[in-house]
Amino acid sequence: MTSRLDSPLLTDLYQLTMLQSYLDHGLEDTAVFEFFVRKLPAGRNFLLAAGLAQVLDYLEALHFTADEIAWLAGTGRFNPRLLDYLAGLRFEGDVHAMAEGTPCFPDEPLLRITAPLPVAQLVESRVINLLHFQTLIASKAARLRLAAPEALLVDFGLRRAHAGEAGLLAARAGYLAGLDGTATVLAGREFGIPIFGTMAHSFIEAHDDEAQAFEHFARSQPDNVVLLIDTYDTEAGARTVVDIAPRLRAKGIRIKAVRIDSGDLAGHARRVRRILDAGGLTDTGIFASGNLDEYRLREFIDAGAPIDGFGVGTRLGVSSDAPYLDCAYKLQEYAGIPRRKRSEGKATWAGRKQVYRYYDTDGRLARDCLTCADDARDGEALIQPVMQAGRRLARPSLDESRAHALASMQRLPPPLQTLETAATPCRVEVSPALKSVTRKADTRIAADASPP
Amino acid sequence: MTSRLDSPLLTDLYQLTMLQSYLDHGLEDTAVFEFFVRKLPAGRNFLLAAGLAQVLDYLEALHFTADEIAWLAGTGRFNPRLLDYLAGLRFEGDVHAMAEGTPCFPDEPLLRITAPLPVAQLVESRVINLLHFQTLIASKAARLRLAAPEALLVDFGLRRAHAGEAGLLAARAGYLAGLDGTATVLAGREFGIPIFGTMAHSFIEAHDDEAQAFEHFARSQPDNVVLLIDTYDTEAGARTVVDIAPRLRAKGIRIKAVRIDSGDLAGHARRVRRILDAGGLTDTGIFASGNLDEYRLREFIDAGAPIDGFGVGTRLGVSSDAPYLDCAYKLQEYAGIPRRKRSEGKATWAGRKQVYRYYDTDGRLARDCLTCADDARDGEALIQPVMQAGRRLARPSLDESRAHALASMQRLPPPLQTLETAATPCRVEVSPALKSVTRKADTRIAADASPP
Repeated sequence: MTSRLDSPLLTDLYQLTMLQSYLDHGLEDTAVFEFFVRKLPAGRNFLLAAGLAQVLDYLEALHFTADEIAWLAGTGRFNPRLLDYLAGLRFEGDVHAMAEGTPCFPDEPLLRITAPLPVAQLVESRVINLLHFQTLIASKAARLRLAAPEALLVDFGLRRAHAGEAGLLAARAGYLAGLDGTATVLAGREFGIPIFGTMAHSFIEAHDDEAQAFEHFARSQPDNVVLLIDTYDTEAGARTVVDIAPRLRAKGIRIKAVRIDSGDLAGHARRVRRILDAGGLTDTGIFASGNLDEYRLREFIDAGAPIDGFGVGTRLGVSSDAPYLDCAYKLQEYAGIPRRKRSEGKATWAGRKQVYRYYDTDGRLARDCLTCADDARDGEALIQPVMQAGRRLARPSLDESRAHALASMQRLPPPLQTLETAATPCRVEVSPALKSVTRKADTRIAADASPP
Repeated sequence: MTSRLDSPLLTDLYQLTMLQSYLDHGLEDTAVFEFFVRKLPAGRNFLLAAGLAQVLDYLEALHFTADEIAWLAGTGRFNPRLLDYLAGLRFEGDVHAMAEGTPCFPDEPLLRITAPLPVAQLVESRVINLLHFQTLIASKAARLRLAAPEALLVDFGLRRAHAGEAGLLAARAGYLAGLDGTATVLAGREFGIPIFGTMAHSFIEAHDDEAQAFEHFARSQPDNVVLLIDTYDTEAGARTVVDIAPRLRAKGIRIKAVRIDSGDLAGHARRVRRILDAGGLTDTGIFASGNLDEYRLREFIDAGAPIDGFGVGTRLGVSSDAPYLDCAYKLQEYAGIPRRKRSEGKATWAGRKQVYRYYDTDGRLARDCLTCADDARDGEALIQPVMQAGRRLARPSLDESRAHALASMQRLPPPLQTLETAATPCRVEVSPALKSVTRKADTRIAADASPP
């Protein structure tokens, strides 16, 4: 690929055709857009906000190169006014957002962008693209952590992630939501996430003998000996591990764990545990992988299967049971006047919004209140300024965001921490002030339409 | 993001830990890996091979930068032998593959890589990542084209694609499978795909008046007038279009189409068609979008809804009903000897393979034969050399691959062209030669294991 993914051309064509018309007709006043999720996927009780850091990176770096302007000109679709404007375009607006790792609910804005209409419009596609994906994956990964609070959990999803950036960002979103690390090396470099990995079946198959493969690996990676034992026969593999252990021990090499990647994982784990224990390898752990998700993790834990850690790949990396969120980035105000879309089934609350969060006396989340940004209240205001006039205000580390996510998940009411839909969802009140602003926005519109 | 996605660090850590052990123990002989899909997702009757061009781009460019080597060294996990090897590593192997756009079936290799074991191993993660995703999306897009053979079909999936590269490559895979184009501008630049786009609801909302919004847009993009009419009330929007049409016509501007994005699309389309026709706009088309997939397209077409084109977004871009394929890249031969994995439920056919395709007298696909690469037969050999000693042999254009896909889909038996699972799947025979090679591979393995 010769193009850069942070190119502003990674956008929908309609952003550019709209921009041309905005400029032609002087619509350059301040616009306010908000990103929110319309509803939770089946089975989810909350979402975990994620992806803000990448959105801010994108906005900070936003510019068209001379090559990109020349390419746009060559399409014959755009006039010089637009091309000149784009050549000088930078993001100098304001951004307000929920902190990454914050549990959130439908209709609550995760992000608000305040900027001249053409700029706030242009960035829509990539802003949604970045926030949607990481929020999707963090929300899935949170369920893995809730299902297996004590287990080592590692993202194995790169291979079947939807292309490369998804693999990289899923590793980030998973770690943010409480996983322990990832197999994706580049995520270790890019985000400082702990990386995990030892061997694939091909390593065993390339040797004529499984025992020799194990010994070769142990001698090359003496501090990282996790042996994959299911290439031919899992229990035979475990016995081979016991056989070679004394020779390795004599060289000062400890077998940290074995990995099982196929078959009845719980059954194999029990038999392998007995073989290892009988062979004196009581401190050698068992790591499992292969088609795992939060439901299977819970099964293993409920059944007391002796598995110490899990590699979770595809079903995490593509959020397989809910591979997308119904989300939007919508114009909420233009030139000081609240606006909203009223399309059937897609109506939104108008104006700039704030979310106040309230807790019970035991510290658990009790309810949220969705209101206008200028409706000052007590309570924890979740939407905070994060960029002012194009300059970032703070840059929490990924580990800080992860700690926030883990602490916030523990403050959720227990029914929201389960894998099934809670009988009572989190209460999100809409304030009288917000209802009033929305009614006023509607009465301004000339078009013939019925009230919401 | 500061890292490049074509970095060889976009891999699983175990590739590097295995490489170190391969080098330490002299396992640098020639290895043969093949990529294949184990089974079709529910409802799919075939897959469409895609992503080869990006795999070859990756292999051609493969190298570690000095920075990347320094970062690896800094992890403390690797010895100088490995780091030196990686610093000089280039892909100088052979690649055989199915042409992009070829319909294919379980167990048939889409790609074979022949290279020294450490090199063929290292590229696994990214090769799977690229082939899996585009094959997934092309296979989904093919169903859209089969459901609506005559309609204009445009990819709208960028926003909810799984991050940026997925949005870009889904546009490519969709076009390859027969869509007409994409909204993603960068895909236009990168791949020469036709791009489509006009306006979002925010454009209408930023104006105080819908009619004014329509006129502004038409004057700015006179050759591209597709007006979004459902922001407030769809039929009222259609009447507004009729009202402004004479003024635009006087300026030489034709209203190409209206777009409906919400509600009962078929019902709205019928009413809008009557309003447009009654207003003399008989040559103004109707374009629909919003939560579409192949099943909804078929409904509209079966119902005779007057819709001329469709924008298909999320459900295409994430292949929502089947967001991943059960696929693998497996060692099939090392040092001249066929190998295979026998893990439960994951056993594979051993050795280098070829797929011969046979047609009925009417030109329809009759059956495939999966056999050893050296088992020469009559029939169309689908696996062809595409890279030799690291040099690309041919570079079909995307339009050539798209024409191949469309022609090949038409040669599928009609039951395989439907959206439901065909009563009789495509017949894929396994040759006696391949069965024999696989048996021999098994008898070589010393480990205690039962036959397949």
